[in-house]
Amino acid sequence: MKELLSDIGLVGLGVMGQSLALNMESKGLRVSVYNYIPEVTASFMAGRAAGRRFFAADSYSALVASLARPRKVFLMVTAGNAVDQVISALAPLLDAGDIIIDGGNSHFPDTSRRMEELEKRGLLYVGTGVSGGEEGALKGPSMMPGGSVAAWPHVKEIFQALSAKAPDGTPCCDWVGPGGAGHFVKMVHNGIEYGDIQLICECYQIMRDGLGMSPQEMQAVFASWNQGDLDSYLIGITADILSKKEADGTYLLDSVLDAAGQKGTGKWTVESALDEGEPLSLIGEAVFARCLSAKKEERVAASSVLKGPQCSMPAGEGFLEQLRLALLSAKIISYAQGFSLLKTASVRYDWHLSLGTIAGLWRGGCIIRSVFLDRIKAAFEQQPALDNLMLDPYFAGILATGQESMRKVLGAALSAGIPVPALSAALSYYDGYRCPRLGTNLLQAQRDYFGAHTYERTDRPRGEHFHTEWK
Amino acid sequence: MKELLSDIGLVGLGVMGQSLALNMESKGLRVSVYNYIPEVTASFMAGRAAGRRFFAADSYSALVASLARPRKVFLMVTAGNAVDQVISALAPLLDAGDIIIDGGNSHFPDTSRRMEELEKRGLLYVGTGVSGGEEGALKGPSMMPGGSVAAWPHVKEIFQALSAKAPDGTPCCDWVGPGGAGHFVKMVHNGIEYGDIQLICECYQIMRDGLGMSPQEMQAVFASWNQGDLDSYLIGITADILSKKEADGTYLLDSVLDAAGQKGTGKWTVESALDEGEPLSLIGEAVFARCLSAKKEERVAASSVLKGPQCSMPAGEGFLEQLRLALLSAKIISYAQGFSLLKTASVRYDWHLSLGTIAGLWRGGCIIRSVFLDRIKAAFEQQPALDNLMLDPYFAGILATGQESMRKVLGAALSAGIPVPALSAALSYYDGYRCPRLGTNLLQAQRDYFGAHTYERTDRPRGEHFHTEWK
Repeated sequence: MKELLSDIGLVGLGVMGQSLALNMESKGLRVSVYNYIPEVTASFMAGRAAGRRFFAADSYSALVASLARPRKVFLMVTAGNAVDQVISALAPLLDAGDIIIDGGNSHFPDTSRRMEELEKRGLLYVGTGVSGGEEGALKGPSMMPGGSVAAWPHVKEIFQALSAKAPDGTPCCDWVGPGGAGHFVKMVHNGIEYGDIQLICECYQIMRDGLGMSPQEMQAVFASWNQGDLDSYLIGITADILSKKEADGTYLLDSVLDAAGQKGTGKWTVESALDEGEPLSLIGEAVFARCLSAKKEERVAASSVLKGPQCSMPAGEGFLEQLRLALLSAKIISYAQGFSLLKTASVRYDWHLSLGTIAGLWRGGCIIRSVFLDRIKAAFEQQPALDNLMLDPYFAGILATGQESMRKVLGAALSAGIPVPALSAALSYYDGYRCPRLGTNLLQAQRDYFGAHTYERTDRPRGEHFHTEWK
Repeated sequence: MKELLSDIGLVGLGVMGQSLALNMESKGLRVSVYNYIPEVTASFMAGRAAGRRFFAADSYSALVASLARPRKVFLMVTAGNAVDQVISALAPLLDAGDIIIDGGNSHFPDTSRRMEELEKRGLLYVGTGVSGGEEGALKGPSMMPGGSVAAWPHVKEIFQALSAKAPDGTPCCDWVGPGGAGHFVKMVHNGIEYGDIQLICECYQIMRDGLGMSPQEMQAVFASWNQGDLDSYLIGITADILSKKEADGTYLLDSVLDAAGQKGTGKWTVESALDEGEPLSLIGEAVFARCLSAKKEERVAASSVLKGPQCSMPAGEGFLEQLRLALLSAKIISYAQGFSLLKTASVRYDWHLSLGTIAGLWRGGCIIRSVFLDRIKAAFEQQPALDNLMLDPYFAGILATGQESMRKVLGAALSAGIPVPALSAALSYYDGYRCPRLGTNLLQAQRDYFGAHTYERTDRPRGEHFHTEWK
């Protein structure tokens, strides 16, 4: 037994776990580490951890015995069954008031369930989103903690020390809400990431195939976009990627296969939107675009069967500026959909999410970090009950001209046969959301015609239902 | 105990159950009926069933005792727990080889589970889609039975007598596959119905708001469309709806509220597509369009904040024919997505679905019945392994000109600010599916940049993974 107790324990020394442990230690914390394969722990201790204030535990009991009270054990293990297994091994060794933290990409209903189970046993549970990949974990991730609110005062200082800082110095970590709120917000973050990436890919394909631009020319465009309203991590790395050459001088990106996988949190986000009845169409199209990209062989075969127009677009004066405005507008719309989902889920689960705070958490450390999020934070701080981000005066102002750009860019892309599912979803949502009278009255009439589902009337109060024999 | 045993028992005398019972009796079957509220049974017997060959059972044991062997009990109860409850009351009273049939809208995994449980007890289980609403149930629904294959010879004659007949006389009922296959196919049918309806609503809104057409003019258009390739139940009832007037001479449709609900099978279909990694984008947009329509108050408020163009479209010579072709093309694309989902699920669950047979089942009785389905049946009968319906020569031929119409109609709608999410999803999928090289190489490069997810290369075999330090 060592004399000084550790401030925190960390279970799971995968890439993310190691990085987070090193981050913790670099902030002055004593960290006990444990991995179920002893060799992994030994290799970490002899390698990156050498000479630093770590304690290697060879069992859960040794881990628990090494921690100061209330004990804090941070799990960085694969989401799913592994989390339940670690919890059931660990929980009996802990005392009332001790805290288990899950930093993996757990599905939010699992986190809610685990919190309830552990609180019944007198323990506290925190499910926290941790975003930013290996580098974020090491240098400062965006963190979205939720769960047992009584745990927050005990972990706040540690978490905010670990986390990224926004450009204004604020930690990108604050309490999100009870139950699975933290993991829900992380899930929506990932869905938004799907949308951001898909939108950038569509703009890239428009430039590459529609305008016939070279990687060098496109690099210059993304680099310039990264100076203004679109300044963000993803636009920045796109410029980096476009400039990367192979040994033979060709551009590497041109040899990368266009078939994508998906890890599941984008899918979860869309499923949650379906559960909540929230039209998250842009992220939905982004997930489906990955599915379609995976059908590479089918696409190649279909390309010689299915007809389309000549794939060329009249570049025209100012088209790239239109494209920039279209991308910015579609991005606003995607975030509007995402925050509307957060708002609806917050009401349903009684989470009392602060949307402005959440926007703030994403300003540093994570993949979707951008200057844009400052504006979202400001919008929800000014009007916490704002129904939809597009209605904020700043964003409505951009969209007033941006919607014209979306129409021009989409018109050009559709004429040239370039697939633009996410950009299209953005404009359809915009036009649908601002449409006081959709064509859905026909849908309601049809459902009443064939299924006697009844309808409401425009000249009668909501809640009064009518049925007609239409024939 | 009555002398003659009944051919089949029916549990659940709601609207659908009563209609199906009457249908059965009209086909010469003796039917025992049971409802857990005795008054419902009594009222049925004294009303619509009076003077016809029904036996009213006052308990499950009386019901079971009244049936010829192997006993067949058809459940028409609300999907979910009620089905499990009825099964657990009924199963102990049955003998090996007896058959329980679930004709409700059960979720297919439930049906798979129930089949396995009951087969272990020596019973047979059939989960069958029944489509066509009250009228279909009474006069002949489309039926999609799956489950215990050993049950099929015992129920085939009854089911095919009950079911609708296609225009060529074939029963719209045939064996779909094991486990939950029947309910899966019914679910996809409902999803396709969502897509069909949404597409029609978008065309209606284009005519109403973009072209400024009167209900009478639109009625004439839909009536004429119902004569050709688009001949279908839904187009036909749209014409009926458009001609319906109120007592004061105004058109009823104009007073129907444009806010839709959803019952859940469309949502299930999209969730299944996400599970299977199948890009079911059009139905996805149709479900989200219902969600957006429900935000009526938000839309009305937003309409005075968010800017858009003048909502008018240059009608131009031949625009309505372009619209017809765009609708037909988008419908082909939606069915292509739906059948691709069926194909993928069939492989995953080892169902051996016959896609041609399934198309055949939907030709009569159900909401999506249309002449169009004859062509789909023919396409999959000619090429059972067809990857995608769009590649069938007949459909590829329509799309060759139809894709131009989609571009023109979408261009006009986007310029006029009319939301067209499903039509847009159709064209994006078409252009994506025929695109041999998407912009997704950038997505893969980004994921490798920030998460070391690796990528494949166009000049190397699939399955070889590469990682680059992009910075």
